[in-house]
Amino acid sequence: MNGAESLIQTLLKAGVDTCFTNPGTSEMHFVRAIGNEPKMRSILGLFEGVCTGAADGYARMTRKPAVTLLHLGPGLANGTANIHNARRAFAPMVNLVGDHATYHLQYDAPLASNVNDLARAFSDWSKSAQSADTLARDGAEAVQAAMSMPGRIATLMVPADCAWNETTAQADPLAIPSAPAVPGDRIEQIARLLQSGGKDTIIVIGGPANEAKLLPAIDKIAQASGATVLYECFNGRTTRGAGHPKFDRVAYFVEMAQEQFKDCQQVITIGAKSPVAFFAYPDKPSTPLPPGCESHVLAEPHEDVATAIDDLVQALGAASLQPRIQQETRPELMTGGLSPKSIGFALGALLPDNVIIVDEAATSGGPPTGLTESIGSHDWLQLTGGSIGFGLPVATGAAVACPDRKVVCLHGDGGAMYTIQALWTQARENLNVVNIIFSNRKYQILQVELMRVGAQSPTQKTLDMLDIGRPDLNFQQIAQGMGVNATRATTADEFNEQLKRALAAEGPQLIEAVL
Amino acid sequence: MNGAESLIQTLLKAGVDTCFTNPGTSEMHFVRAIGNEPKMRSILGLFEGVCTGAADGYARMTRKPAVTLLHLGPGLANGTANIHNARRAFAPMVNLVGDHATYHLQYDAPLASNVNDLARAFSDWSKSAQSADTLARDGAEAVQAAMSMPGRIATLMVPADCAWNETTAQADPLAIPSAPAVPGDRIEQIARLLQSGGKDTIIVIGGPANEAKLLPAIDKIAQASGATVLYECFNGRTTRGAGHPKFDRVAYFVEMAQEQFKDCQQVITIGAKSPVAFFAYPDKPSTPLPPGCESHVLAEPHEDVATAIDDLVQALGAASLQPRIQQETRPELMTGGLSPKSIGFALGALLPDNVIIVDEAATSGGPPTGLTESIGSHDWLQLTGGSIGFGLPVATGAAVACPDRKVVCLHGDGGAMYTIQALWTQARENLNVVNIIFSNRKYQILQVELMRVGAQSPTQKTLDMLDIGRPDLNFQQIAQGMGVNATRATTADEFNEQLKRALAAEGPQLIEAVL
Repeated sequence: MNGAESLIQTLLKAGVDTCFTNPGTSEMHFVRAIGNEPKMRSILGLFEGVCTGAADGYARMTRKPAVTLLHLGPGLANGTANIHNARRAFAPMVNLVGDHATYHLQYDAPLASNVNDLARAFSDWSKSAQSADTLARDGAEAVQAAMSMPGRIATLMVPADCAWNETTAQADPLAIPSAPAVPGDRIEQIARLLQSGGKDTIIVIGGPANEAKLLPAIDKIAQASGATVLYECFNGRTTRGAGHPKFDRVAYFVEMAQEQFKDCQQVITIGAKSPVAFFAYPDKPSTPLPPGCESHVLAEPHEDVATAIDDLVQALGAASLQPRIQQETRPELMTGGLSPKSIGFALGALLPDNVIIVDEAATSGGPPTGLTESIGSHDWLQLTGGSIGFGLPVATGAAVACPDRKVVCLHGDGGAMYTIQALWTQARENLNVVNIIFSNRKYQILQVELMRVGAQSPTQKTLDMLDIGRPDLNFQQIAQGMGVNATRATTADEFNEQLKRALAAEGPQLIEAVL
Repeated sequence: MNGAESLIQTLLKAGVDTCFTNPGTSEMHFVRAIGNEPKMRSILGLFEGVCTGAADGYARMTRKPAVTLLHLGPGLANGTANIHNARRAFAPMVNLVGDHATYHLQYDAPLASNVNDLARAFSDWSKSAQSADTLARDGAEAVQAAMSMPGRIATLMVPADCAWNETTAQADPLAIPSAPAVPGDRIEQIARLLQSGGKDTIIVIGGPANEAKLLPAIDKIAQASGATVLYECFNGRTTRGAGHPKFDRVAYFVEMAQEQFKDCQQVITIGAKSPVAFFAYPDKPSTPLPPGCESHVLAEPHEDVATAIDDLVQALGAASLQPRIQQETRPELMTGGLSPKSIGFALGALLPDNVIIVDEAATSGGPPTGLTESIGSHDWLQLTGGSIGFGLPVATGAAVACPDRKVVCLHGDGGAMYTIQALWTQARENLNVVNIIFSNRKYQILQVELMRVGAQSPTQKTLDMLDIGRPDLNFQQIAQGMGVNATRATTADEFNEQLKRALAAEGPQLIEAVL
């Protein structure tokens, strides 16, 4: 057995059985070890950001890590933007990054770089393996780190000789540490704050507090205290629709969030951060909280959020309350012109129960978000780290994780071009993803932001930097070039028909909605 | 004037007048400043690796930096692989990376990351700006660092308030430090080694020693000493063809390089590193040098290579020798089946004088390299850092730098998919690039490397990880979807006709050579 084989065995024993890979020469012994091991599924990406984004989507749906296999520092760098997004989603992930053999590092060969510094900067745990004999143990540590609450990024550099040298070493999985309990006095303090009477309170939930099974208890807390519950603006996974309580989100633009919080006297966070502006703007505040509004933590994301919520329900005497559960309601199909609104109506009318919606619709996302919130139970995956190009890869990984569910990926055209290679992996794996591209031929959010930061009266040259027409992209051709069935819609009726057909089809589909 | 405007003025004064941009909200004041300044050319990329690769190609041809405009840590991360390649090519580059406003950083908003650590890991110079008043001076330092020999990567993080705050500060360009002179005793030592008689010597040149004007003097050194001259295996820019001396390169595979060096008793490096294996392999050496062969440095890349070469010519009494200059010879067109060889013949027969060839042809690159080496004078740009996906962006930047020259980009299909978005920028800017995709539907180099690392008898699952068919990519459709004229060739005759047509056309063209 060589080091690579021993590591793969340890990963399998730890329940890690899916690899998103974009390998090179230094990973060849992993390629062979995986190729010889039927239990480890291997999925090829044409770009590393596809692999890391897919691992993110997979982890959000399974709550366990996939492993990525990447090629030295530049390979890790290409995967870093979606690692960043995954980290903000608390997605457990194990990255294996091949490196030059230990004795070859001194020669500074062309692909050598400061990979360890890069890994450290964007991971919660990172290490460079030292030998074949300790590699499996390193892998066990990586999985342990990734699975530690609330879900973390673990990156293991593997010099090629650690993979190819023979070893007899094996390593069993390591125990996953329990999430630290929230101390009782903190539960009591929050209960007192909620019972203090008359204080306008908003409870902000996020991360592990968003688990579907916790939402009824959170609603009981809201009922008992009169507080309003809001999700964070961007969530790794939200379970919405019929059968679940319904909560709004903190608004994206800080002025709109200020309006949500304008009467708020105290904020309680559960698995979430106290709201902050996504960006700073001249003469706008960094947080939407009004003066004097204090923010209190019930549970940090890494703490035992579930028990803390239960304890708070008990402390408030709210256990016997009935949670307010949504009924299914769906809009009708629209006819006429194609718009984000008509698309939202179509999604609301046509999406099946149990759908997974991956949302990078950006400025087109309002109506689709609102018009699907009361359909059948479904999961909604958002762009948590703000680095665009997460949607197509995350949809890919979610479809790998959940082959029995339909995945619908809503994507702005600008963002879709960052990791467009994901379409090929969807085709190769025949994944049930319906990709909808909102094709407005501009970075529309930036045209909005340009005004908001006070950069008024733009010149044509300025606007050109925010416009992705000239030439227009044709996503139908691009998708077909990667083996994905694709259509274009220019009216609501065309879109409705194409969406029906795409949802009924097997394998990946793409609809370019020409807005 | 705000900070962004003051910085742009300093860049212009320093001769930096081209910006490859993929901006976001935190860069909006730069977008406006550039949009209002006719002297700064702005070129949009749909992915950051396109911007950094284009800046690399631009710098290789102009020997001065372009500026990139990138969006926070994830934007820099997406550009890092091609920054790595550029650094190995000694391409001067100035990266401006927007960041959260100084006072907003504390809130750890979604796009916050360890951008400074990332910048430090992959740059020669990096800094985070502190105020609008010092921003222009920071920019002057960045250009100075980038232009320091032999060409460096400078990365400046700009918190948004440093860009938008008003300032009266201006900054003039800073003096570019001269390259340190090579001491006379080192010149004498190398001259003695070359004159010692009977010692089989190979002179390895690279980096700044590859400048066309230095090649005749290097050939004189070879003649006077009986040494053989080899380029490094991968070079940022090599000027080849008629009118120039002809030197071979160090071979890629270490066994083949061992054959080149088997009788070598001493190596002299000029602007190059002593040869090392690109990768380590089990039971193969890390360098191709035989036992006892010593390596000596005439000049490091950052030293005054040109003067050192002149001094060595003098010390050897070789000034009056006539350099051996190539005559133009061209192959005939082939007919019949399409292969890298037939494509090499077509390139040799048809490429115009003064063409710029960007080479990421990988395993298909042998015949095109060999069959064009004696055509008219031309520049050859190679993948210096080993991170695939450099070709299309570098061709884009070279075409921006040299609008009067034809650029031909030779690209493997696997590598082309990493930064395929570059085609759109070529279309938008109507650049004279002919892109040739060697479409063999596999990571062929990895199928070779799999055997070489000793991973024999691969399973189908192993080979699937090295195969990019299933589904086949259609580069014609993908290119057309980004607005680039494209054709497919399946025979030598089709290819020859398509190449003639593409070379005669204005604006970007793509030929998918289906192998």
